[in-house]
Amino acid sequence: MKLSIVGCHSATPRRFHNPTSQVLELRDQVYLIDCGEGTQVQLRRFGIKFTRFSHIFISHLHGDHFYGLIGLISTFSLLKRTQPLTIHGPKGIREVIELQLRLSNSYMQFQLHFNELSGKEPQVVLDNDTVTVTTIPLKHRVYTNGYLFKEKVGQRVLDYPAAVERGVDMPYYNKAKQGHDVPGKAGVLISNTEVTKDPPEPWSYAFCSDTMYLPQLHEQIMDVDVLYHESTFTQKEAHLLSKTKHSTAAQAAQVAHDARAGQLILGHYSTRYTSKQPFLDEAQPIFGNVVLARDGRVFHFDPHRKIENHFTDLVPLKPQPTV
Amino acid sequence: MKLSIVGCHSATPRRFHNPTSQVLELRDQVYLIDCGEGTQVQLRRFGIKFTRFSHIFISHLHGDHFYGLIGLISTFSLLKRTQPLTIHGPKGIREVIELQLRLSNSYMQFQLHFNELSGKEPQVVLDNDTVTVTTIPLKHRVYTNGYLFKEKVGQRVLDYPAAVERGVDMPYYNKAKQGHDVPGKAGVLISNTEVTKDPPEPWSYAFCSDTMYLPQLHEQIMDVDVLYHESTFTQKEAHLLSKTKHSTAAQAAQVAHDARAGQLILGHYSTRYTSKQPFLDEAQPIFGNVVLARDGRVFHFDPHRKIENHFTDLVPLKPQPTV
Repeated sequence: MKLSIVGCHSATPRRFHNPTSQVLELRDQVYLIDCGEGTQVQLRRFGIKFTRFSHIFISHLHGDHFYGLIGLISTFSLLKRTQPLTIHGPKGIREVIELQLRLSNSYMQFQLHFNELSGKEPQVVLDNDTVTVTTIPLKHRVYTNGYLFKEKVGQRVLDYPAAVERGVDMPYYNKAKQGHDVPGKAGVLISNTEVTKDPPEPWSYAFCSDTMYLPQLHEQIMDVDVLYHESTFTQKEAHLLSKTKHSTAAQAAQVAHDARAGQLILGHYSTRYTSKQPFLDEAQPIFGNVVLARDGRVFHFDPHRKIENHFTDLVPLKPQPTV
Repeated sequence: MKLSIVGCHSATPRRFHNPTSQVLELRDQVYLIDCGEGTQVQLRRFGIKFTRFSHIFISHLHGDHFYGLIGLISTFSLLKRTQPLTIHGPKGIREVIELQLRLSNSYMQFQLHFNELSGKEPQVVLDNDTVTVTTIPLKHRVYTNGYLFKEKVGQRVLDYPAAVERGVDMPYYNKAKQGHDVPGKAGVLISNTEVTKDPPEPWSYAFCSDTMYLPQLHEQIMDVDVLYHESTFTQKEAHLLSKTKHSTAAQAAQVAHDARAGQLILGHYSTRYTSKQPFLDEAQPIFGNVVLARDGRVFHFDPHRKIENHFTDLVPLKPQPTV
């Protein structure tokens, strides 16, 4: 599992602060979560390929979470995309996108599906061989959902030297990965466990932005491996919580603690904070394994499930010289 | 008059190519022309103040000319703007903007006016003490207007040493600038021309993007000081013109020539061109005083009306270190 933070700041896009957008890779699947203005440019600057998105998950219809969507869709059209694309998001998203496509006389060569949401209970929005994605009902100033990604157990892993030693021919490798016994030397059936290893344990990821603190939130995401929870403020700005319906770093940490999460990633910082250190300082005493999201930060979660702070920070590509 | 090119590239925003947007300053007035995705971020990166826009002129409803508008309006709202704002643009623009504001539950503290256009003849869209703005009907794949800005003659210029010498008191300076005779030493009436000079000659600017070549276009913009005319292609790509309804650099130069323009600025380059030199090379033999638009290029037109290539290139501001 790999999580790339395209943007993690709240409200208006600033010079070097991008609004919310994340790319989640699970095996061969690549999903986009939220799409603030300028997301497509940031994806390009960070060198993140975006043509493989098959599903886009939008949490809510505030501009800093979806104003970049129409531009991305238009770009797909200009790039002559043919694969279908599904947008999951609150009711109304279809009207906004279709209206703009109609006004610009856009002709799409690909199918654009909308999965409009209005339910208040968790609901499965995607279920394929790789992952099940369920909405996480949140509470914000407008109708909002987080998304819970639960990877499914993958194929067994071929023990290549063992397979060779036992004379299993290549055409049977896939069958072995699927868990079947396969013929070896002289056609003798080889037990599956002799030539394969257990698949890596699947990952789970909960994206929770934007929301006020929900004391029961942990119940739905219990034992999640990685939790991204918004922390727009620190406790110093607690007086702004009831009006803005956002959370503090301490509250995000409380959710992570109660959910027995593996790791907490903080983000959606108010632009009033120049340093993000106070968010970390506030969360750490409540939940130890906490890290900061940052635009361009890529979290690599390895197959051996060591949850560490192993991330890299992408450097935006430099402009080419122009005339 | 000062013209700042925020972005001048066509189609999808790229890593370092911004879609169309320009800021035109005429005396104390500041106008925005077109607003592709990411315009507000580019304005910030170039250090161009944007709170003073009172009117925004949108040419047409293709994404590279207006997808940044909703984000800019939302930012005005977050910045607690109170001055009214008027958007001029094709019919449909009101519905797009209002739908998105409604879906995000946005409460605006300022009045947002829409001047929706659907006429096929030139029409005055703004007329104040400083300028008259008229639509320039263009021909593109969707309904499109350029805009012709004609500055009005300003106040007379106070000859401060002469006013002091003749004993004109400061309270009368404004009256003198308005063209009145004013009392001097011992109350003797001083003729206006003794203490003021003629105001600078007014400027005119024609913005023409996007459009196919219109052989009669020069008639409406005859003798314009500065013409921005799109040149998406060079003649090498002439086969794309009829489908895309864009122009070549040669065609833009022909319009400037026929209109007896003072200066031609080329822009809206297709992203297939890495160097922009071919546009210049193609236009120059047809119209000599031609310059290239470039993201961040600022054209200064001085009060003495020397039309030269006097521009400066803004360098995007550097990111501040963050934690």
